[in-house]
Parts: sequence; C-alpha cells; structure tokens
Amino acid sequence: MTQILENYVGGRWQPGTGRLADLCDPATGEVVARAGTGGVDMKAALAYARDVGGPALRAMTFAQRGDLLLAASKAIFAHRDALLELGARNGGNTRKDAKFDVDGATGTLAVYAELGKRLGDTTVLPDGEGVQLGRTPRLWGQHVLLPRRGVAVHVNAFNFPAWGLAEKAACAWLAGLPVLTKPATATAMVAERIVRVLVDAKVLPAGALSLLCGSAGDLLDHLESQDVLAFTGSADTGYLLRSKERLLRRSVRVNVEADSLNSAVLAPDVEPGSEAWALFVRDVVTDMTQKAGQKCTAIRRIFVPAARLQDVQAELVERLGAVKVGPPGDEATGMGPVATASQLEDAVAGVAKLMTEADVVFGSPQARPGPGWYFGPVLLRARDAATARVVHEHEVFGPVSTLLAYDGTAAAAAALVRKGEGSLVASVYSESRDFVRDMVVEIGPWHGRLYLGSAAMAPLSPGPGTALPLTVHGGPGRAGGGEELGGLRGLSLYQQRVALEGDRALVEKLFPTPAPAAATPSAR
Amino acid sequence: MTQILENYVGGRWQPGTGRLADLCDPATGEVVARAGTGGVDMKAALAYARDVGGPALRAMTFAQRGDLLLAASKAIFAHRDALLELGARNGGNTRKDAKFDVDGATGTLAVYAELGKRLGDTTVLPDGEGVQLGRTPRLWGQHVLLPRRGVAVHVNAFNFPAWGLAEKAACAWLAGLPVLTKPATATAMVAERIVRVLVDAKVLPAGALSLLCGSAGDLLDHLESQDVLAFTGSADTGYLLRSKERLLRRSVRVNVEADSLNSAVLAPDVEPGSEAWALFVRDVVTDMTQKAGQKCTAIRRIFVPAARLQDVQAELVERLGAVKVGPPGDEATGMGPVATASQLEDAVAGVAKLMTEADVVFGSPQARPGPGWYFGPVLLRARDAATARVVHEHEVFGPVSTLLAYDGTAAAAAALVRKGEGSLVASVYSESRDFVRDMVVEIGPWHGRLYLGSAAMAPLSPGPGTALPLTVHGGPGRAGGGEELGGLRGLSLYQQRVALEGDRALVEKLFPTPAPAAATPSAR
Repeated sequence: MTQILENYVGGRWQPGTGRLADLCDPATGEVVARAGTGGVDMKAALAYARDVGGPALRAMTFAQRGDLLLAASKAIFAHRDALLELGARNGGNTRKDAKFDVDGATGTLAVYAELGKRLGDTTVLPDGEGVQLGRTPRLWGQHVLLPRRGVAVHVNAFNFPAWGLAEKAACAWLAGLPVLTKPATATAMVAERIVRVLVDAKVLPAGALSLLCGSAGDLLDHLESQDVLAFTGSADTGYLLRSKERLLRRSVRVNVEADSLNSAVLAPDVEPGSEAWALFVRDVVTDMTQKAGQKCTAIRRIFVPAARLQDVQAELVERLGAVKVGPPGDEATGMGPVATASQLEDAVAGVAKLMTEADVVFGSPQARPGPGWYFGPVLLRARDAATARVVHEHEVFGPVSTLLAYDGTAAAAAALVRKGEGSLVASVYSESRDFVRDMVVEIGPWHGRLYLGSAAMAPLSPGPGTALPLTVHGGPGRAGGGEELGGLRGLSLYQQRVALEGDRALVEKLFPTPAPAAATPSAR
Repeated sequence: MTQILENYVGGRWQPGTGRLADLCDPATGEVVARAGTGGVDMKAALAYARDVGGPALRAMTFAQRGDLLLAASKAIFAHRDALLELGARNGGNTRKDAKFDVDGATGTLAVYAELGKRLGDTTVLPDGEGVQLGRTPRLWGQHVLLPRRGVAVHVNAFNFPAWGLAEKAACAWLAGLPVLTKPATATAMVAERIVRVLVDAKVLPAGALSLLCGSAGDLLDHLESQDVLAFTGSADTGYLLRSKERLLRRSVRVNVEADSLNSAVLAPDVEPGSEAWALFVRDVVTDMTQKAGQKCTAIRRIFVPAARLQDVQAELVERLGAVKVGPPGDEATGMGPVATASQLEDAVAGVAKLMTEADVVFGSPQARPGPGWYFGPVLLRARDAATARVVHEHEVFGPVSTLLAYDGTAAAAAALVRKGEGSLVASVYSESRDFVRDMVVEIGPWHGRLYLGSAAMAPLSPGPGTALPLTVHGGPGRAGGGEELGGLRGLSLYQQRVALEGDRALVEKLFPTPAPAAATPSAR
C-alpha cells in the first residue's frame, strides 16, 4: 500500500493535488509513498506561520521555549522505533545510521532545551556588556538580540530527515520564530512522521511548525524581509535560491550549507599502531561507510605523509573489506544502499571523474546490479596531490574517499587542504602541538570546525563527521558560507542585533537581564 | 588647474588612462579634478593586497595593529585643515560638515586603536568560553576567530569620503586584512588625499591599503572566496553587486548598507518646551541640514502625536527658516549645496514624488538657480500617514523630511515605522520607560540601532544621525541587512569563526589567551 504524505500548513493536514512524486525504498527500488505540494497556498502558509505562530512563540520566555523543545524531544523519542524503521524503509539506513539521524534530532532538541532553561524567564537577550558612549557613563550603549518577525523557512537535505529538521527548528524556536520545514522529497517519510508526532502530541503552539512534502513551488516568491531561509543541499541549488532577486532585494537572510571536500590530515608524528593512528583509521572508515558516505561532513580527502601512504592504504583496505554491504534490515549489514537512483548515478559518475586523476585502490567503481541502489565503498589514491583538481573540487556524495600523499610538513598539507576552497570540517591527527597550531592557523579560515584527533580524546571522540549542537556547523566558500548550531550562536540567524543608545539608567532597566551565568552560557 | 587623482595599486601611484570622470565643486559646478581607473590591472591589484599586505598584517599582534591604527589616525589628523578644505571644495561641506567626516575618521581609528591595545600581544581571538563536548571535560570545544585570507574591498558612498574609508579600514586592519578602498568618484578628493597622507607617512605595511579613484571595472570578477566586499550606497547598486554570480557561487562575504527611511518618534509624554522636546527638535533640524541631509542615518520620517503636530511643525519651520543656505566657505552658512548635479536632480524629483501624498510646509521643492547645486531644506507633512506609501519607501537623499501624525500609542507608531521595511536607526523621544520598552520590542527587529532620547542624556547626545564606533551601524531589509562597527563586532565580517574540538589540555594551550578584560572588552 502506498502512503500519501500530506503537507501541514495553516494548522491542518492537506494532501498535494496533481502529480505526486514517488518516494522509494532504496533497498528494493519499490515505491513506498507519494507526496506533492500541488494546491498548497504558499503565501497563506507563510502568513499563518508569521501571524499565528510568531506571536505565540514570542510571548513565551526562553525557559518556556526550552520546555517546548524538551517536550518535542520526548515526543519524538517516544516514536523512536517507528522512525528508525522509516529511516530504513525510505532512506536505506541501517539501524545504526537511522539512530545517528533520529537520536541526533532528539539530542539536539534536548541540548537547546537546556540552553533555554538556563536563559530563564526572559525574552530579550543582551549581546555583550554595556558600554560608555559619551564623555560620562550617562550616555550608555547596550546591544540586545530580538527575534525577527518572520518565518524560518528550512529547506533540508535528503540525508538527515530527522536531524536536519530538528537542529534547524531547535534554533529557530528557541529564538522565537515559527518554522516552515521542507524535507527533501525523496526521503520525506521520517520528517513527515516527526511533524505528525509533534502535531498529535500538541507540544507546539499553533503555527509554530508547518511542513511541505514536495516542491517548494512559489514559496520563495512570498518571503518578506524579516523571514529567514536556511538551506542544506547542493551548491547548485544553493546558488539558485540565494540568487533570487526578491531575496536579494529584501535582504532576506539566507544561510547555505553546501558542498564540502572535508579533509583528514595524518601528521608525521603519528606512528602506526598508536591510539591516534587507530582513531584516524576508524574515523575514515566511519565517514566512508556511515549513511553510505552520504554525510556533508564526511572525509573526502585523506592526507597522509608519503612515507606512511602504503601503511594507511593497507589498513583502510583491510577495514573496508570487512564492511558488509547489504539490506539495511540485516543484522550483519555494515552499510546500506545509497538513498536514491540519482544518488547512485551521481556516485558512479563521480568516481569516474575522480579516476581521471586517482586510482581505485579498493572497491568497484560500478553500481551493483539491482534491485536496490547499492554502491560499495570506493577508496582512491591520487596520482599527484598537487596537480589534482577534481579531487579537490568535486564532492562525490557516497562511500567514496581519496588518499593524497604530502611531504609531512604542515605547510604542504595546508596548501593542499586549501584547494578545497572552503569546507565544513577538517580533522588533524597529531600529538604535536606545533603541528596542530600551524594547521589551525593555516587552514582554519577555510573551515567552520577543526577536529583535533589525539590519543587523549580518542575514547570520547564522536569523530569529525558528527556535527555537535555546541560547536558551529557550516563553512566558508564552497561550503556555502553559512553557520548553524554552536550553542546560542545558532540563534543569531533568527535574531536582529540592535544597539540601544540612551540614558544609562533607562537602558539598563529596560529588560530584566538573565543571570550572569545564563547570559553568557559556556555554549556561546 | 585641474588635478588628476591617481590610483594606488601594487604599491605605486598610477593615473587612469582613457576617459576620466570630472570631479566638481558643488558650490560652483566647476571641475576641480579628474579621475579614472582605465589601465589598472584589477586582478593584479587584488593579488598584491592579498599576497603582500595580508601576510604583513597577519604577522602583527592586535596591539601592533592598534599602534598602526593610532599612527594612521594621527597622520590624518596632521592634515586636518587640508582635508576640511577639500571637503568643502569637492563635497560642498561646510567646515562643520567636513569636521563631522574627517574627525569621525580619525576618531574611529583611535577607538579601534584602543581596542587593539587592549587585546594585546595575541593574534588569535577566542570566541566565547570553552565548552565540554563529551561525557567528561576531556573532549573540549573552543571557538576562535581567525582573519580571512583575502582582501577587504570597500566601496564607499559619496557623502563620507573620510569616515567611510576609515571606519571600514579600521575594522579590516584590526582583524588583519588588507584594504582596497574605492571612494565614490564624484567626491574622491578627500579619500585620495588620505591615502596619500598614509602612504607618505609610511604608517602601513606594503599592500595594506590600495585605492581606486574611479570605476571598479572588472574588480569583482576577480574576487575569491576569502575576500570580503563591504558596500555603502544605493539599494540598486547594492543589488547589482550582491547578485553577481561569481560572488554568490564563492560565498564571498558581502556587507551592504543601503537605503534607509529612518524614523524619529516623539512620544505623547514629551511636553513642548521640555528638554526631550528640545532635543527632538534639535536632532530633526541637525539631520535635515547637516551635510545637506546627505546622511544615510538622517531622519526621513518624523512621527508626532496628532495633537502635537501643529506645535512641532511650527517650531521646525521656525528653526529651518533660520538656516542660511550658501557657499560652504562662508562663515554664516548653515547648510551648503548637495554634492553633485545628479543628487540635486534626485532631490527635486524625490520631493515631487513625496508631494503626491504629502504637502510642503517649509521650503521650496525647486532647485535654486545655479551656479552650484543648491537645494534648501524641505519639510513636508503627510496627508495620511497610514495610507502613504512613497514616504515610507522612497528615500530622498537631501535636506528633506516628512512629518507624519499618529494617535499617540506605541502600537500605532510602531506599525507606521515598520512600513519603512528596515532602517539603520530610529529615535524615540520619551521619558516613559513603558513607551520606550514597547517601541524597542515592536520596532527593534527592523533596525540596527535605536536611539532613546530623553532629558537625562540630552546634554551628551551626539544625535541619532551619528554612527558611533562602539555601537553597530547597519540595518535589516531595505537598509541592506549589513552590520559594521559595534566595537569588536565590526571585525567579524573579516574573520572566520572556527570551532576547535579536541583534548582540553591541547585546545586550551594552543594560543595565548588575551587577559580576561581584553578578551571581552566592554565594546563587544
């Protein structure tokens, strides 16, 4: 039986009319649901969120919004098993992959719930300390952060239907903005179920959450200057969205998180068999195989001192060889199929492109014969890291990564990493503070996050591929130039910073200030 | 004798070839200089700044960059009289107007010099406190701010050739970025002289400052993803710049400060003759006449309770009547000409547009007969504030402002103010904390700065039209969505925020941290 996913707009469920898109089971190719947004009045959907959801959220204190996030987290957790099952059925996720998505969603909501609780019974956040503006302290300046009066429109990627929805919504809701969320159509079942769970559990005020399952239609043609658009997906789609005249003319805030050729750099001080070495190998294998490599944070470029290349390659080949590719439901499966037919096509084409300057050292560059969209892990080795171009510029969004040799100096590694022209994350594995410091300075400006792998942190490490709620997620240049999460930093996309300038006695007493600890929680 | 302004690129002065633009004396229309960028290799100019200026600035500590700013401030101050004279000759500035520009430049540099000094002998700034990421504090997160590795390209407006150059450069230099500055051609003499002064005084390392006197040519076609573009000017030009595919594709950071229909709101509690009333009247008159109303922060919409409208109008008419319009060099002159022939044309056309829904209550809607581009102050009164459109949407960039009646409630005033769809600043004159609080909450999200006028701060007040270095300058929506200044906040446009994730012992010792007081100076 094929389910029809509905849209949730204007406070009611509404199926799309006209032609619907097929949503499939990646393990079989079978159609498991259909969805579309035909007949949805986008302008009215935005207006309802703006006029009904906005005021309700803004009337709440941060502590109350925190309660709301906690309730949302719990409501989703209560349906965890069903969501994990949908992650397999409509995303090809192994149970572990699906947990990564769904538990990431509830976990992020819970962290932001805690931040809200800490901010307490206030609605206006101070931004930094007050400052004397005139010759005497009587003329006083204080910056405050106010919620924008628009809708947070969230356009998410296919790979994290649960986490993508929740991490963006957590920030918007805590800031006081209603959310209109649009999952990628192909894997929308998980997101649709989450919205249904939240609606049924009545944890959100009316208008705080709307859902589009299908094309955005003319949605963007109705955005106003106080609205916010946050997009995760391909650089090409990101360009299409942000180049829209209406958005540019109205200075609609747009956050883009796009392509990223994330790097892992093994320093020459890390000996084979050491803990840092083991962490490095584990992280590369995890990033290549988790969610079939369909993570925006996954390691795509593996930089290894030339003298270690054979050792690293041999170990990776051995580990990858032990990964069983198969149906997500099988206990033995280590990696499931990719999410869609077009992902499979792109992965095959992408590897062919990489092969113009790199050799395959593990795996097959061909898709497995159907049914199902299976593509095993492929490890390549660049023939010449310095002259290679494709490997630094073309993100193959699947279980694919490339080894590149460098001369063992931080300067050379940094020069190669920078050829990616901006990434979400890079990881550096070293016990040498000097090497790490050099890398931070030399590649930092091209990244939103640097993961510093070492023996000491290895037992606790979530790996570089995991975006954490308290550190920023985003990157400059090719990665889109956006920034999400990072504790309260994640709220700023949804806030207007306003400088108040006036009599100190007035300015300081306008709004109750949160307790000092809460005003600058360690997360900010 | 007509001076030829030169460009300063690649570390040398270079006149433009081909057709040059005329720069005039607004008081007479006479050509006083010519300038152009023909023959300038824009790509090479950017590369020189990036490759020579960038490393030199990044090698300096914040304290050293602070010293550099102080030296720049002093060098400019040493040529103050010559610059004031150029402000008159090429900008139509009265001596007071020219001081506002030139002293604003040296003052802003001096404030940022002090901020640099406080940050001390460091090069990497922490962003907030560190935070525990794992089950134990061993896995630690710390955000840091690193200078982007590009050029800060500054495209400035004609009205503040000195301040515009200096306020943008102060932030970029302190952050560690080289500057390529492009003043508006029509009034470039002051900016050109400042660059010449700084070059001659040798206060900057090679490559830290480049100058284009004329068209930007193909400059933007050579921007890279680590470059930053900061623009001040019209919304139309802002749109042209930010819509460029190259910039959008590479996520080049673009800051736009554009049109702004700034509001002044007189609260009903302010009695005629009171100090707040006097301040309000003084601020409106100052904003209408200072720099002949050519300030992006100038009050364009004056909201007055209906019951007070006659009183306010009478007082404004009287004050404006006392302003002598004439040559900037005359002692008695209170207001000079507008800066260019096209400004004059726009002002006349703009007032005609406003007259479709407002009546002129002071001044003449016509330009004065030449020579010189004189346009006296024009005060209008909207026939119906609620149905008016042009007055909320069309910025007349001259000595023009419009009175609008409201019913005396904060809600009604806020609804009218918001019709401006985003402004740099609004001022609220009231002794009532409740009225002020309501206004802050209700109009704050549409503004970058709110000036709260009252008796207590009146003696110290610089007026809402003055952008201060320690409070942010910029506004959402129509105002361009940008943000400059605001103490160390002004550096963030030029910095990449990077989350470091790793062993606490490593992360905390990577970089020397500034003293606590310096890490979070009151200005941030």
